[in-house]
Amino acid sequence: MIKTAVIGYGYWGPNLVRNFSESGRTTVVGVSDLREDRLVAAQRRFPGVQATQDAASLIHDPGVDAVAISTPVFAHYDLAMAALKAGKHVLVEKPITATSEQAMRLIDEAAKRNLTLMVDHTFVYTGAVRKIRELVQKGDLGDILYYDSVRVNLGLFQRDVDVIWDLAVHDLSIMNYVLDCKAMAVTASGMSHVTGGPENIAYLTVFCGGNLLGHINVNWLSPVKLRRTLIGGASRMIVYDDMENSEKVKVYDKGITVTNGPESTYQAMIGYRSGDMYAPQLEVTEALGVEIRHFADCIENGAKPITGGEAGLAVVQVLEAATLSMRNRGQLVEINHEPAIVAA
Amino acid sequence: MIKTAVIGYGYWGPNLVRNFSESGRTTVVGVSDLREDRLVAAQRRFPGVQATQDAASLIHDPGVDAVAISTPVFAHYDLAMAALKAGKHVLVEKPITATSEQAMRLIDEAAKRNLTLMVDHTFVYTGAVRKIRELVQKGDLGDILYYDSVRVNLGLFQRDVDVIWDLAVHDLSIMNYVLDCKAMAVTASGMSHVTGGPENIAYLTVFCGGNLLGHINVNWLSPVKLRRTLIGGASRMIVYDDMENSEKVKVYDKGITVTNGPESTYQAMIGYRSGDMYAPQLEVTEALGVEIRHFADCIENGAKPITGGEAGLAVVQVLEAATLSMRNRGQLVEINHEPAIVAA
Amino acid sequence: MIKTAVIGYGYWGPNLVRNFSESGRTTVVGVSDLREDRLVAAQRRFPGVQATQDAASLIHDPGVDAVAISTPVFAHYDLAMAALKAGKHVLVEKPITATSEQAMRLIDEAAKRNLTLMVDHTFVYTGAVRKIRELVQKGDLGDILYYDSVRVNLGLFQRDVDVIWDLAVHDLSIMNYVLDCKAMAVTASGMSHVTGGPENIAYLTVFCGGNLLGHINVNWLSPVKLRRTLIGGASRMIVYDDMENSEKVKVYDKGITVTNGPESTYQAMIGYRSGDMYAPQLEVTEALGVEIRHFADCIENGAKPITGGEAGLAVVQVLEAATLSMRNRGQLVEINHEPAIVAA
Amino acid sequence: MIKTAVIGYGYWGPNLVRNFSESGRTTVVGVSDLREDRLVAAQRRFPGVQATQDAASLIHDPGVDAVAISTPVFAHYDLAMAALKAGKHVLVEKPITATSEQAMRLIDEAAKRNLTLMVDHTFVYTGAVRKIRELVQKGDLGDILYYDSVRVNLGLFQRDVDVIWDLAVHDLSIMNYVLDCKAMAVTASGMSHVTGGPENIAYLTVFCGGNLLGHINVNWLSPVKLRRTLIGGASRMIVYDDMENSEKVKVYDKGITVTNGPESTYQAMIGYRSGDMYAPQLEVTEALGVEIRHFADCIENGAKPITGGEAGLAVVQVLEAATLSMRNRGQLVEINHEPAIVAA
Repeated sequence: MIKTAVIGYGYWGPNLVRNFSESGRTTVVGVSDLREDRLVAAQRRFPGVQATQDAASLIHDPGVDAVAISTPVFAHYDLAMAALKAGKHVLVEKPITATSEQAMRLIDEAAKRNLTLMVDHTFVYTGAVRKIRELVQKGDLGDILYYDSVRVNLGLFQRDVDVIWDLAVHDLSIMNYVLDCKAMAVTASGMSHVTGGPENIAYLTVFCGGNLLGHINVNWLSPVKLRRTLIGGASRMIVYDDMENSEKVKVYDKGITVTNGPESTYQAMIGYRSGDMYAPQLEVTEALGVEIRHFADCIENGAKPITGGEAGLAVVQVLEAATLSMRNRGQLVEINHEPAIVAA
Repeated sequence: MIKTAVIGYGYWGPNLVRNFSESGRTTVVGVSDLREDRLVAAQRRFPGVQATQDAASLIHDPGVDAVAISTPVFAHYDLAMAALKAGKHVLVEKPITATSEQAMRLIDEAAKRNLTLMVDHTFVYTGAVRKIRELVQKGDLGDILYYDSVRVNLGLFQRDVDVIWDLAVHDLSIMNYVLDCKAMAVTASGMSHVTGGPENIAYLTVFCGGNLLGHINVNWLSPVKLRRTLIGGASRMIVYDDMENSEKVKVYDKGITVTNGPESTYQAMIGYRSGDMYAPQLEVTEALGVEIRHFADCIENGAKPITGGEAGLAVVQVLEAATLSMRNRGQLVEINHEPAIVAA
Repeated sequence: MIKTAVIGYGYWGPNLVRNFSESGRTTVVGVSDLREDRLVAAQRRFPGVQATQDAASLIHDPGVDAVAISTPVFAHYDLAMAALKAGKHVLVEKPITATSEQAMRLIDEAAKRNLTLMVDHTFVYTGAVRKIRELVQKGDLGDILYYDSVRVNLGLFQRDVDVIWDLAVHDLSIMNYVLDCKAMAVTASGMSHVTGGPENIAYLTVFCGGNLLGHINVNWLSPVKLRRTLIGGASRMIVYDDMENSEKVKVYDKGITVTNGPESTYQAMIGYRSGDMYAPQLEVTEALGVEIRHFADCIENGAKPITGGEAGLAVVQVLEAATLSMRNRGQLVEINHEPAIVAA
Repeated sequence: MIKTAVIGYGYWGPNLVRNFSESGRTTVVGVSDLREDRLVAAQRRFPGVQATQDAASLIHDPGVDAVAISTPVFAHYDLAMAALKAGKHVLVEKPITATSEQAMRLIDEAAKRNLTLMVDHTFVYTGAVRKIRELVQKGDLGDILYYDSVRVNLGLFQRDVDVIWDLAVHDLSIMNYVLDCKAMAVTASGMSHVTGGPENIAYLTVFCGGNLLGHINVNWLSPVKLRRTLIGGASRMIVYDDMENSEKVKVYDKGITVTNGPESTYQAMIGYRSGDMYAPQLEVTEALGVEIRHFADCIENGAKPITGGEAGLAVVQVLEAATLSMRNRGQLVEINHEPAIVAA
């Protein structure tokens, strides 16, 4: 059993503690949070778990094998680096760090010490996203033409990050996993409706190379909660609606056929193809449980995590570019994928 | 009774003929189209109506008072100008013309001759959009913060215009009518998935001045038909879903309250307000019928149309800017609202 | 071309005239209605068609080959019988007659004269219902276990028939066509909320023989319009929702497996099987157009109509039994399928 | 703090333990179940709680104040009676007992000993149902005309009870609470599709007196999960859809107006009224938590529970009548509300 400590018991922390408790592979030895009331709640729900305000004591506890970090973003780097230096495996909440340079440093540190560094891109472990990847990999969709996501709701306004860092991060992790989209350039627009606050509504276009276009619509000030993604392929197209109770993924045998002929008119060139729709059955295991068992596998077998430090870094690079573009009213920002040299 | 001729009997033409026939204010004396098969169909459905391939004969027919033009966009200007010069009132399909300069010339010509020039921005005459305008005008929504529309479906790929000119035109006309949004600048991204064809997927951000942001997502290559608009106000917010059979407009008494205090943390500053939702009853009269009776009113009383030439021009100016931005991968394009001098 | 007359120009009449005009197989020579305003509307929409208050003149017009009857139910029998006796083919609105005895008399008369007698069970000609029948016939659903329909909306309250005669008639015609359900017995409950009016809400259970159960929920006083049918098969199950804009028919690869073993507990006996769902592509041709071309085929080739007099009779027999049961607060009423001898 | 024991740790047990643990008014001292694997699961999730196969030891434990029973229905009576006789307050899963006579005995025993006896009619404590009751009580709906519920899904087939006892029980408890419906007579139809098993599909009509009609459609063999109730009032009507993530309750300002005049035709008599729809904001507190705090209130203050033994009895009486009717193919069964004398 891998003995874990969970740092940060806010919105997501209880889910981490419950899943680490019930995975069958891991146990929770301690929880830390700066807020007293949260520690009280943690002990009411998980009577056997140590609760403390002192994260450092857990990080340096020799009885702890792995540390899960679910604090505000700005604290990720320091806590994760301290845990790695203390020889612990690390699972960090998304986004992995506040800057791509920080992400690179964590990757280096984990590699040097042969420790597992993983970022909690939870959606990658859902039955829906895994099924979509399977369909894409099998070629069922043909060439992927676009990824178009709407991810909006009312709240939770953040202070330290804008809505792109909070919500678009999910789509960027899905795009990386499902489409192997290597973002080449980004343009973003957004606006803040709270004086002095970060942008609470934003639109992000990602040019992935080839003729694959990504677009992400994120909003903290929407009257309704929407989680809908269209994925357009040359052969088939997907609607992935995470608000559906069932049939979250629908595959449409629809598209166009283009006939090039010397005499054909434009309308005659384009044929509209419309066939059956189907909704594949999805695994319903809780994503976080799948993820934690994968984390345990990586620790025990030294396997490379699906959502390791590099996946975290790739997302943060796009987030940085998006923020830069948004501050410049949509100016295109190219993304540099050259390996960087980071001073230790 | 105002005697009308309808030029162009493609997708929209039959609706024009039917509504002009049944309005009680207008009659149809002739229909023209270049395609023989369409003229046959017109005569089977409307046995009493003259059908001809010769549009000019209708335009110059002294028995015709008004001309409705529903041809491809490139032909709008020449036909509308000819009709105005022949002394006819004109209703043109959207977008009014292929360039803003053409729109200005039509406006001038109609003004000079004291004729009614109207553009068929049909959505403006729907019960839904009229109700939304009423709510906005009464101040029920408070300051408008954003307009966010998704208007996607499979087809109909156009050759002469891109998807923005085909679909975003609806949202731009709604924004003008409902929000009095004067577009100051535009940024747009898009892509073509048919070699040599115009963009079939596009994202358009409109900066309207103040902190009002517009965003329009249009796509000819979507597996599903979506017509959903979020309108965010400081006091209330609207979801307008035109695919709903009933309750197309939902008004949410939701939003945030911002408390500024010296000591307050950011999270404490933002309060989430959530109250009832309601769906106002909407008038169900067919929009095109309402529009045609308004056209008749304008002709008979010399009233200024709600969707006159200027409304058409304002939309075309944004369309031009959007295309320019899209060709430059999202570069911000400012819109010049200075009155232009057009040589006659 | 088969020359037709349409008797009754109320709610459904305009659809009949339009489809008879555009079928390519039939033309409309005359329309009759007792109300003057409806004749005016008919002439405005169909300028070339004769409009009269005198139905008899159309029925006896030697230039008329076929008569379509869309009047209130009570008038069906007299008009249809007169038309048959005048040697015309007949298409009658549903339900075919007000009593099963009347239906038998029409069947006899048409047989004697070798004329086509058809009832307008429109749903049978929709792409959705035809696809469902195809799936059932191919055995894709396995043994059919139940048919469960909800068909409710606000209005239109009828005076001469209760809600079962108005709405359940659709489901009974679908059940007959799709399931070959021979109703053996019926139990029904209902209530009137208008003093002196017929029942406006009713629930009808049909025992079809074997273990196939039908249930139909009809209501004129519902706040929302629902048209949803579940069809449960031993192998697969269908949801048919006619209010959907697309994907009206969904086929679920779901069900139970029953394992009988000497030692198995009940829960262990029942296995829940859950696979993919798919929505087959449906033909979108207007049902009434398909039906009218089938009517023309029957007239010209002497073929037996899918919805001939016998189909109309089978439905009326269940309606009669349902009304009887409802008046006796749910008492089971057996249906006699013995061929009856009807005095001419 | 009220010290509780939970007997039965199957589907619902974990929810009981969690809510009794976190209510702030109660604690859980022990859990019992006959299955070893469930006791293991209970201890993994709630490390501090005693887990035993011996329910009797908990019932007679002097450290236990109250007992919650969530076992199969047949065991309710013996366990509840034993707990009452041991001086414990009792919360029993629905339906309260397997027969109305058993329910009467429990009521008597609890009354004699001045103990709280409550049945877990959970829906009564949801924000949705409480809001509906509030609207009905205020007269917003006018006279209630019908209650029409569809409650279907795939599974969980029960051995000892039919689908009415399993699912319709929810609607009957809601009808009692919301409409003060006193069921006068019942007619039910159903069918079993598993040889030797109880009915898995059933339709239940409840005559409540006056012109109020109830109808409940329950099914364990549905491809989709539906939870939709229409409540028709003379002034307004409700759609309550528990599968919606938000706006579960919609209130429609729709209905008919009946004008009686000497000369009026039937159609002229009936006017269709259609106004706005609204969805009131609902409390989102977990129903079981509300219920458990109410249970604690009743124990501490001796208040009468909203869902006390009498509410449980009223439901069981209708269930008994429904089963009887179903076995007799829809025969009407009157319900006797006379107080019965139960031998001790």
